[in-house]
Amino acid sequence: MGSAMRYGELNPPNRILLGPGPSNVHPIVLRALSSPLVGHLDPYFMERMDEVMELLRETFVTKNRVCFPISGTGMAGMEAAISNLVQPGEEVIVGSNGFFGQRMAEIVRRYHGKPIEVSEEWGRAIDPSKVEEALSRSGADLVCIVHAETSTGVLQPLEEIGKIAHAHDALFLVDAVTSLSGCELKVDEMGIDVCYSGSQKCLNCPPGLAPITFNERAMDRVRNRRAKAQNWYLDVSLIEQYWSEGRAYHHTAPISMIYALREALRIIVEEGLEKRWIRHERNRDALIRGIEEMGLRMHARENRCPTLNTVSVPEGVEDAKVRGFLLDRFNMEIGGGLGPLKGKIWRVGLMGINSSEQNVILFLGALERALRASGFRVKGSGAKAAIEAYSERG
Amino acid sequence: MGSAMRYGELNPPNRILLGPGPSNVHPIVLRALSSPLVGHLDPYFMERMDEVMELLRETFVTKNRVCFPISGTGMAGMEAAISNLVQPGEEVIVGSNGFFGQRMAEIVRRYHGKPIEVSEEWGRAIDPSKVEEALSRSGADLVCIVHAETSTGVLQPLEEIGKIAHAHDALFLVDAVTSLSGCELKVDEMGIDVCYSGSQKCLNCPPGLAPITFNERAMDRVRNRRAKAQNWYLDVSLIEQYWSEGRAYHHTAPISMIYALREALRIIVEEGLEKRWIRHERNRDALIRGIEEMGLRMHARENRCPTLNTVSVPEGVEDAKVRGFLLDRFNMEIGGGLGPLKGKIWRVGLMGINSSEQNVILFLGALERALRASGFRVKGSGAKAAIEAYSERG
Repeated sequence: MGSAMRYGELNPPNRILLGPGPSNVHPIVLRALSSPLVGHLDPYFMERMDEVMELLRETFVTKNRVCFPISGTGMAGMEAAISNLVQPGEEVIVGSNGFFGQRMAEIVRRYHGKPIEVSEEWGRAIDPSKVEEALSRSGADLVCIVHAETSTGVLQPLEEIGKIAHAHDALFLVDAVTSLSGCELKVDEMGIDVCYSGSQKCLNCPPGLAPITFNERAMDRVRNRRAKAQNWYLDVSLIEQYWSEGRAYHHTAPISMIYALREALRIIVEEGLEKRWIRHERNRDALIRGIEEMGLRMHARENRCPTLNTVSVPEGVEDAKVRGFLLDRFNMEIGGGLGPLKGKIWRVGLMGINSSEQNVILFLGALERALRASGFRVKGSGAKAAIEAYSERG
Repeated sequence: MGSAMRYGELNPPNRILLGPGPSNVHPIVLRALSSPLVGHLDPYFMERMDEVMELLRETFVTKNRVCFPISGTGMAGMEAAISNLVQPGEEVIVGSNGFFGQRMAEIVRRYHGKPIEVSEEWGRAIDPSKVEEALSRSGADLVCIVHAETSTGVLQPLEEIGKIAHAHDALFLVDAVTSLSGCELKVDEMGIDVCYSGSQKCLNCPPGLAPITFNERAMDRVRNRRAKAQNWYLDVSLIEQYWSEGRAYHHTAPISMIYALREALRIIVEEGLEKRWIRHERNRDALIRGIEEMGLRMHARENRCPTLNTVSVPEGVEDAKVRGFLLDRFNMEIGGGLGPLKGKIWRVGLMGINSSEQNVILFLGALERALRASGFRVKGSGAKAAIEAYSERG
């Protein structure tokens, strides 16, 4: 009794989560979270682990044996990928055109690797020829690239860089946190050796898991390290033993989150990846049409990501005020800019189930209300333009 | 469609989880898990983060400012504690009388520290005078001890070791994974400088979070490291900035798990820690009475942990067969032994809400059934003995 009475019932508001993540969680996934737990060595749970691996392989479009969720958030996925591969003193090529590319370089440095940053303006894609150049003049045998840069809304074309990396006998590591199941991604076909993601973006699962996959070429590198990876919890050579038949105890799997991921992946595979990718593109296109109709500009001029849209904050409009309006009046979250883009862009996530006509039209309407309340003169109706875009396509 | 049809509905069995963890999750906590998500920078969520810190301080019985859940399982808690404190080449005293003490030594080694293991037979407590001796003949300034050794069922007395550590100007680091809220633990009063736990034991929350606390003395050590901690995801100097007013983005908090932890801690504080500790002791005592009545022996001869009970597998009885019987017939999980105790003991967790008269009586009855089915001649009725023990106390 006593002090505890200070704490009332947990009663979160019902937000529409159109920020950079977390996205809204599918009702079936929420229900899975509230299922009773079994032990992590229970035969029932082991079968679910196997299913999660199978479903993840389908989602990553890979045949890799090593394919499971890391028991941490997307950032743990990034660190797992890098800490297992990078050895002290090694040079690593890192594409740096946004916050998460820079994070990769930071993590490489933590593990005493030497990042060679191939930089590009925030809002543009990495130029493959610069990767080629960096590989030629260095001893790097690892190239790290962010697929969908959450800080800028740029979708990075991957295949050419993958070919260049392999031509130099380097591994190709891809951050698919904001792209997995929302943007075309085929790990094996695209020549990706290591790929990780997060549960809270296009998978519509709560944050807390980081799906990851290593092919055998990458696992050979892990197994032949000079010294053990400097991170025990994220050591894939140990985790793979837990996620395979021996079930060698490493840590206790986060049962409820694994339940959730299993259901989230099942929903994705039931929709079909190709259909899902097209849906995300279509909703991005309608959003852009609406944004431009209102007299606003998209921040990313090219390679616009279907899952994370960046809109430039117009002159004279206060970023935080608009976001506050959307949150208070519409229960709708959108994101602000990071780093150099703080105050300059809005980040509008349309991820997984959140990529829908309903959300696009409602967001455009809500944004118009917020802009008008800020004294901004909207050029035309964004919602109307989006409705027309959808109607044309049928 | 297609392949997804292979995956049926998630429909886990309703287990009674009396193993070494996870324990059963409180219905209120399960419900919290299925609440709709908000963004991790939503004002609603920030308030919940503050509540979780307050509630954790009450549960750890500490005034430490740094007190929050690590976004990983209990093992991430262990690694966070060690990786932030240990620097390459440093000697570290580690109490080693079970699996998790050995794990601590392994993690110290990963960070290029030199563990000095103060060993004891599996099933006995660490002798404080041996810690004193090890400190005297080494340059160690960190002592790591497991409070409730999950592999043996021994509860380690802490206060004397804490005093010895401080007399040698060493920090005292305690693993409270299996004790927090189930065994008497007062971080400040007991002179503990760093303490971590796991959500899935006596907190009755799913696995996936590791509450941790550092006092200022320990944080000074972290801040004055020669080089950054060799682990980014678990770097408390970064995580504390996310869990304080600036909310500096580090990773996306696992929203649903934080909801769950908030409710789990609220339930604990509402019951009251002292009452809770006594309840765990009382149920352990009744369990032991029943076990001995049946002609079985407890594995731990002294310092028996109230939350995790170890029973020696009697001669001629097959460990796995008994556990299988309990799972199949009673939907009841208990644990087997680890390492040298494999096949030799059963581990019976009575953690949090699972520490109840109902579970003790049912377990003893179920075990009698399983033993008889194995051909073992039970001496007396364990369930009857436990009922008598409870009735005497009223």
